[in-house]
Amino acid sequence: MDFLVCYDVNTETSAGRRRLRRVGKVCTSHGQRVQNSVFEVSVTDVQLLTLRERLLAEMDPTEDSIRLYRLRQPRDKFVEAYGRDRYVNFSDSLIL
Amino acid sequence: MDFLVCYDVNTETSAGRRRLRRVGKVCTSHGQRVQNSVFEVSVTDVQLLTLRERLLAEMDPTEDSIRLYRLRQPRDKFVEAYGRDRYVNFSDSLIL
Repeated sequence: MDFLVCYDVNTETSAGRRRLRRVGKVCTSHGQRVQNSVFEVSVTDVQLLTLRERLLAEMDPTEDSIRLYRLRQPRDKFVEAYGRDRYVNFSDSLIL
Repeated sequence: MDFLVCYDVNTETSAGRRRLRRVGKVCTSHGQRVQNSVFEVSVTDVQLLTLRERLLAEMDPTEDSIRLYRLRQPRDKFVEAYGRDRYVNFSDSLIL
């Protein structure tokens, strides 16, 4: 299943930046960062349980917000990206 | 159709903050802000054309990133929110 993880955190504090770094590590182990605090992840049911648990352990619930959106399939049909784009399609063939 | 608009912008500059304010105005005319730079909007096909055009006019494509995700229906079944939550369900009955 593909999910979008949106993490709202105050990056003006070093504690906030640290939490974002940690959340980034958790998310990028299952996918990739597409914006500074937005990640696309691909997980199984079991991995989702672990991911959710790790995200909740990293966040400060009184300061931060985490939203998980289950994405539509096929992903490419339902997403549009403009401007600076970090997304890399790892499923595509690699042309050397 | 429901869309998620994720706007990545450097808010450390006044120009970036100004662009975020403007993008916020464009998005909240069709929905609501759920995180500092994430918006849930509900639009018709025609409104989507206008929304996309206005977003592209506000953003700086060399600095910012905008991603639009078409959301699954029913929305409530495919989104999870943790921590500080700004979302208000305007479709729910108002209990006085």
